[in-house]
Amino acid sequence: MTSSSRGYAAWLPVDRWQDPEQIEQWRPLLERIDARMDLRPDGPGASALQELVGGIRTLTGLSPSLTLKAGSPVLILGSPEAARQSRNELNALPLTEEAYTLRIRTGNNDEQQSSQKAEYAILRGGSERGLLYGVFALLRLMGTEPHGPRELDIVEAPRNPLRMIDQWDNMDGSVERGYSGGSIFYRDNRLLPESPRIADYARLLASVGINAISVNNVNVHREETKLITSALLPDVGRLSKTFERYGIKLFLSVNYAAPIELGELDTADPLNAEVKRWWQRKAEEIYAAVPDFGGFVVKADSENRPGPFTYGRDHADGANLLADALAPYGGTVMWRCFVYDCHQDWRDRSTDRARAAYDHFRDLDGRFRDNVILQIKNGPMDFQVREPVSPLFGAMPHTNQVMEFQIAQEYTGQQRDVCFLVPQWKKSLDFDTFLKGAGSTVKQIAAGNVHPFTVSGVAAVSNIGDDDNWTGHHLAQANLFGFGRLAWNPESDPDTIAAEWSALTFGANTRAAKFVEELLLESWPVYESYTAPLGVGWMVQPHYHYAVDVDGYEYSKWGTYHFADRDGIGVDRTIATGTGYTGQYAAENRDVYDSLAECPDELLLFFHHVPYTHMLKSGKTVIQHIYDSRFEGTEKVERWIARWRELESEVDHERFLHVLRRLEAQAENAKQWRDVVNTYFYRKSGIPDEQKRILYA
Amino acid sequence: MTSSSRGYAAWLPVDRWQDPEQIEQWRPLLERIDARMDLRPDGPGASALQELVGGIRTLTGLSPSLTLKAGSPVLILGSPEAARQSRNELNALPLTEEAYTLRIRTGNNDEQQSSQKAEYAILRGGSERGLLYGVFALLRLMGTEPHGPRELDIVEAPRNPLRMIDQWDNMDGSVERGYSGGSIFYRDNRLLPESPRIADYARLLASVGINAISVNNVNVHREETKLITSALLPDVGRLSKTFERYGIKLFLSVNYAAPIELGELDTADPLNAEVKRWWQRKAEEIYAAVPDFGGFVVKADSENRPGPFTYGRDHADGANLLADALAPYGGTVMWRCFVYDCHQDWRDRSTDRARAAYDHFRDLDGRFRDNVILQIKNGPMDFQVREPVSPLFGAMPHTNQVMEFQIAQEYTGQQRDVCFLVPQWKKSLDFDTFLKGAGSTVKQIAAGNVHPFTVSGVAAVSNIGDDDNWTGHHLAQANLFGFGRLAWNPESDPDTIAAEWSALTFGANTRAAKFVEELLLESWPVYESYTAPLGVGWMVQPHYHYAVDVDGYEYSKWGTYHFADRDGIGVDRTIATGTGYTGQYAAENRDVYDSLAECPDELLLFFHHVPYTHMLKSGKTVIQHIYDSRFEGTEKVERWIARWRELESEVDHERFLHVLRRLEAQAENAKQWRDVVNTYFYRKSGIPDEQKRILYA
Repeated sequence: MTSSSRGYAAWLPVDRWQDPEQIEQWRPLLERIDARMDLRPDGPGASALQELVGGIRTLTGLSPSLTLKAGSPVLILGSPEAARQSRNELNALPLTEEAYTLRIRTGNNDEQQSSQKAEYAILRGGSERGLLYGVFALLRLMGTEPHGPRELDIVEAPRNPLRMIDQWDNMDGSVERGYSGGSIFYRDNRLLPESPRIADYARLLASVGINAISVNNVNVHREETKLITSALLPDVGRLSKTFERYGIKLFLSVNYAAPIELGELDTADPLNAEVKRWWQRKAEEIYAAVPDFGGFVVKADSENRPGPFTYGRDHADGANLLADALAPYGGTVMWRCFVYDCHQDWRDRSTDRARAAYDHFRDLDGRFRDNVILQIKNGPMDFQVREPVSPLFGAMPHTNQVMEFQIAQEYTGQQRDVCFLVPQWKKSLDFDTFLKGAGSTVKQIAAGNVHPFTVSGVAAVSNIGDDDNWTGHHLAQANLFGFGRLAWNPESDPDTIAAEWSALTFGANTRAAKFVEELLLESWPVYESYTAPLGVGWMVQPHYHYAVDVDGYEYSKWGTYHFADRDGIGVDRTIATGTGYTGQYAAENRDVYDSLAECPDELLLFFHHVPYTHMLKSGKTVIQHIYDSRFEGTEKVERWIARWRELESEVDHERFLHVLRRLEAQAENAKQWRDVVNTYFYRKSGIPDEQKRILYA
Repeated sequence: MTSSSRGYAAWLPVDRWQDPEQIEQWRPLLERIDARMDLRPDGPGASALQELVGGIRTLTGLSPSLTLKAGSPVLILGSPEAARQSRNELNALPLTEEAYTLRIRTGNNDEQQSSQKAEYAILRGGSERGLLYGVFALLRLMGTEPHGPRELDIVEAPRNPLRMIDQWDNMDGSVERGYSGGSIFYRDNRLLPESPRIADYARLLASVGINAISVNNVNVHREETKLITSALLPDVGRLSKTFERYGIKLFLSVNYAAPIELGELDTADPLNAEVKRWWQRKAEEIYAAVPDFGGFVVKADSENRPGPFTYGRDHADGANLLADALAPYGGTVMWRCFVYDCHQDWRDRSTDRARAAYDHFRDLDGRFRDNVILQIKNGPMDFQVREPVSPLFGAMPHTNQVMEFQIAQEYTGQQRDVCFLVPQWKKSLDFDTFLKGAGSTVKQIAAGNVHPFTVSGVAAVSNIGDDDNWTGHHLAQANLFGFGRLAWNPESDPDTIAAEWSALTFGANTRAAKFVEELLLESWPVYESYTAPLGVGWMVQPHYHYAVDVDGYEYSKWGTYHFADRDGIGVDRTIATGTGYTGQYAAENRDVYDSLAECPDELLLFFHHVPYTHMLKSGKTVIQHIYDSRFEGTEKVERWIARWRELESEVDHERFLHVLRRLEAQAENAKQWRDVVNTYFYRKSGIPDEQKRILYA
């Protein structure tokens, strides 16, 4: 690690355990490692060994003796003789490439100390990558089980084939929508392929099971367009090797108009033979320099980026052009579906941005190559604090899809306010689309269990930068950790993920960790409760997307409106009287959303325009809900601050102060939201607060 | 000139007259020049001769024969024998330094051609600078009198001793609030003292009588702080010489905390002896390098800039510190009064930003040195399209003051929309403060005729950049021209100024010039009519200050609110029920503004909060006024476009298209303002338009 601070180490081992008892209890498993693998110096197996030995040394000060023999990837900790029987059993288990199995035997079922009895752990990977995931699972276990090992058997394989991170880093060193300093990948239009920081990022990602990364912003500007040229490909190749060591495939975002912008052709028409040849030659060139290359991420015909529309072609034409070029090498095209009219006229009530992805892509089902994956944002708008699930997801049975989340908290506090997003993602993943009957949940679709996808999964926009603690707000690390954990297993419980991260970073079974866990789990509803109400979204300062501006996007070209007037608020997206967006869902969901009576409160204003006096299922009117929740959310943040102050003696001073300052700033932000939203609606509705709290007239 | 385009030449001679008759009529005056002056190569006298000979050559193709003798600055054009009598008369006239007298005799009073008769012009200056102003007056006359010279006698001296331009240029090459490209003064943190463009700017300024310029932004950042160090002073000295040639004194904006930021002291306390010595030595160093140096412009304790408040001192202490340092060299301190709480809480209705300058400075009257001038923005807020005159102006009888205008159209269309501001400035200058009885107008105060100021006048923020036409929008040049003309003589008529600029740039007596004149004169009321209504101000996009955002500044820290609710709008600044701001005016004005019945419509919402149904003096309700004027303003811009199209054959193609595109963009902006403002107030008030035009619900 290039820094040994708590923030920089994140959830990986950094400090020696302070309790000697703890070291003693783990000691029998940690003094000897018997490894069987065909070790390649730059492969994930080598990293697995290195992480395990390094982790043991860091946490316990022990230096295990290591024996290494050729064979299938297996690690035996403790007595190999005692483990022999288990080893044969486990070797017989069929494991997929990324799977691992971990067995621990303490020789002591009644929890009394009995160092005479045989103790061992066996870790087997379906491949070197599986072994690496198993090592990180074991290290996680060591960090979360302070009372020594317990007997267990784990057999785990990731549910999602693709678990991807998208960087939005620019070559000038900035990060679009980044809230954690500059890029760790670039500076002054140069790549930094040898940066130790990048290697540490690869470790962090692999430790939570990420297996793909796109290393530049989907908005591909002039300099980034050159990443696929001979000038920069050697650097890309070196960068790729850093990630290969941790089982992560490197992707690049590409400029659809690259043949033109690089000055080589005067068209980028996907049906033009020269254009096809250009991309074929380009793919050949890329794979020569970057043999493990994953493929392209493409934002085309979206927010003023170039694309096939220029030539009267459609998204399938565009994506297939690139897919055909990559196919001989096993590469993949991630084609983003964030396509809408970003020059909308707010006066035009018939256009609905929420409809756009479905309207653009649905009918293209079956037209895409097998190595194209459509990347679909979780909601139909843009990473708001509350949105329904995108109706496009699962609606194209013959087209590979991944769901895209945003770990970067663009609209959810920008890593200044705490907003632990795992519960939000979990809610999306659990959503039942009913597209192939009950049980067609997003997580099953993403895992490829509903439609016969050749590849699928989840992707997310990264939240890291070159701040020492990676994520600006220390607690925002939990989102990166949590995304990986949830992508690995969407059945994971957000509570467990929050508890794991808190224990790994604030110490297992500490009061601080317990409180952080609680705070994380409250933070999404709290953030929602002081910002835009009931699913209506936006109300943020234009361009910046932080801090309240109720009308900020109301009269804009972005398709983002709440339509509040003196009588009511909300967007009518029903079939009968609205934009008809509800009709994009399967009947089971359509009927719920379409019905004022059945639509859940939390999304009411996303689907319906209602009077301020409309009674919610909660038993409150809309206006009273607005007032109440703004007050409650703000008070909650104040209570967090009071409780955090009580922990001063139990957290290292640097992190204590850091979190305190961030929480104080969050309280200020929350108060501004509370008062502006409440005043806005009080001025507009004239309806006083039932509880007669202060509203600024 | 570094470019000979119409835009670059601005209102100075650029093209040969197309009518040979016109040349013939002027010829008798232009073939011979007898000059009497003690010519210094780099003085304004040399520039005067150069401008006259160059202007004649450009406009007519004639090359006058020139005789030069020592003596007082006099130029005789035409027959010196015929002029002898006149010359003796005019030499006897007492002229102040900047004054000039111009006599033209055609020898032909009945306007018939009579080249036999004696024809001459005599131009005498009170100094070389006066002579230079006279030459530019003669060239202006040549450009606006297409039918040859007419007999005339002009004796003119500027009314305002100080006629100053403030650049807001930064050394990185940007211009704060600049709408015309980058800086002509700086690039990449270097000065460009030898740039021919700067010399041409000096010519433009001198041609309208400007006699002082501050060459860097009042927000003095790190690099600009170094302008007063030995590393950059030689360049400042060279820059100063460029302006000296045109009679313009160079000032610098300085960082109040310079002794600290330059790393030389650890305090900037104005009463500290070391700080005093530091500034004394600094002044000595500056004048050694820049002998003609004008002095400092200072923005202190304003919008987060450092100042004397840090040390518990007041503005007088701060200003006098610098004034004492400059006094031995005749230098001046321009101390800006744009001081207010820029971290205001919008919830706090008792604080009123409009009060701030008066509250901060009024009681300091008499405490400032004679070489300090307080620089006071024309209105109490910040260059809005409509504001009352600052009550501080004239309220400090024993303190020098200048009024500050903004030529840069920060809040008035940003040189994308046409907004000819001369009528606005004229209105301020004509305003009677009644501070020493009736007739205590702003223009009389500025001229030093009301209080015994040692120096006073007007200053303005420049609107130029390195765009070829200087000002982005070609028509925005008229504001720079007009500021100089009005600063020279505040009795000037805005109509005449518009007519002069139009004739000089589009050709005297052309249909294009007539229309441009008309358009300019309509443009301020038109801009007002589609933007924020009735003096309430703001409603612009935060930070950018262009384009509508009704609530953009409503819940901000900037003290800029309209308080619109479902019932009414406006800021109560009355004594009885409001912030008491009206009490800062002399009784005559106070009583008018304080009275809902007497307050002029155009400022109603600046002073009063009224229901939407309040009846204006115009006979319309406030809400109907809002609707009507938004529609009317937008329609007016559409009519400008139609009329401009009719002139296609009469204007050079480049300028025709340029103006057309800008007007089209203005029409779009106006429509967005119209519809957003109208929809905003319709949604809030629920009151329909009497004329049933489209309001977007």
